[in-house]
Amino acid sequence: MIERLTRQIAFILEIDKMKTILRQNVPITEPHRQENDAEHSWHLAMMALLLAEHADETVDVARVVKMLLIHDLVEIDAGDTFIYDTAAHHDKEEREQRAADRLFGMLPADQGADLRGLWDEFEARATADARFAHAMDRFQPVLLNIATQGLRWKLHAVTADRVLARNRVVGDASERLWTHLQGMIADMVEQGHLSAGPKDAN
Amino acid sequence: MIERLTRQIAFILEIDKMKTILRQNVPITEPHRQENDAEHSWHLAMMALLLAEHADETVDVARVVKMLLIHDLVEIDAGDTFIYDTAAHHDKEEREQRAADRLFGMLPADQGADLRGLWDEFEARATADARFAHAMDRFQPVLLNIATQGLRWKLHAVTADRVLARNRVVGDASERLWTHLQGMIADMVEQGHLSAGPKDAN
Repeated sequence: MIERLTRQIAFILEIDKMKTILRQNVPITEPHRQENDAEHSWHLAMMALLLAEHADETVDVARVVKMLLIHDLVEIDAGDTFIYDTAAHHDKEEREQRAADRLFGMLPADQGADLRGLWDEFEARATADARFAHAMDRFQPVLLNIATQGLRWKLHAVTADRVLARNRVVGDASERLWTHLQGMIADMVEQGHLSAGPKDAN
Repeated sequence: MIERLTRQIAFILEIDKMKTILRQNVPITEPHRQENDAEHSWHLAMMALLLAEHADETVDVARVVKMLLIHDLVEIDAGDTFIYDTAAHHDKEEREQRAADRLFGMLPADQGADLRGLWDEFEARATADARFAHAMDRFQPVLLNIATQGLRWKLHAVTADRVLARNRVVGDASERLWTHLQGMIADMVEQGHLSAGPKDAN
């Protein structure tokens, strides 16, 4: 049991690095800095607790929360890949698989297998829980962008058609959230905070 | 349903402020800055997932995780009160109750009451779930201090006897974690990273 606890504590200290992995979004009231993976994961878990009732299929909220708490751990080794950076995506999967081997391998075998299974499920996006977790992961950056008048969209010259294409997975989990998101994007275009892009995005 | 969703999204944007509430600990690999409440809450939720097996009484891990995700939300209005600052603790409860009224009041009534009940339970520390959540909340700063050779303990001239007195609540939830923690504190004193204090702390 002491051997188990020692491994668990080593893992808990290792994943502290999530606080240093920066993402392509900013906290609403601290737009001068990027949010990190620990903050992001906490925010997604809170969103899942509150928004699960809008899922089209029944989801196990506790499993979704757990999935979201761990879904970005692999970025400790593999780094964050910006969602609109298609070039960096070519070896993303390989880098992340290696990271999962190392990180989940630090834990006692049963716990490592449990979390690895949940992460694999998230990545495969073939279950209702995984689809809803992905919906939260996509919805949150949109909310942060809306609350900051499209700050990061403007910086990266992202257009509404790309935002909608990237976030269509929200609709795989919740028709209601997807409809609401589309409405918010249309408002942002109308208010001049987001360019409609090559084709009309609405 | 749109009214519910609008309230939920307003709350999700409001609690983004957790990313700006600084605590008296530092990320292990970024010791030049303080960790914030969002990072801290994520870390505690992860600890609960991994360490629940060490609880003396059976705990509902999903409830503990949810409790930990929300336990510091009141600090959005009330701020963080340093655990060793006894002066600031006199009106802490009143400030936090007002904060809870406002924040949980933003949500649809059923969800607000659910989260408020869970926060009240955490504060009362009268259930096994609440005691284990508190144990995580105390254990994490100790781990961060140990991993940074007592950085914040040295800064605030905190001694081993005070660390042990403050963290005794870990023993209310898990004899095994409490024994392990005491051993780690003794090691820190031996290695010269923590002063034993007025009386021998071990």
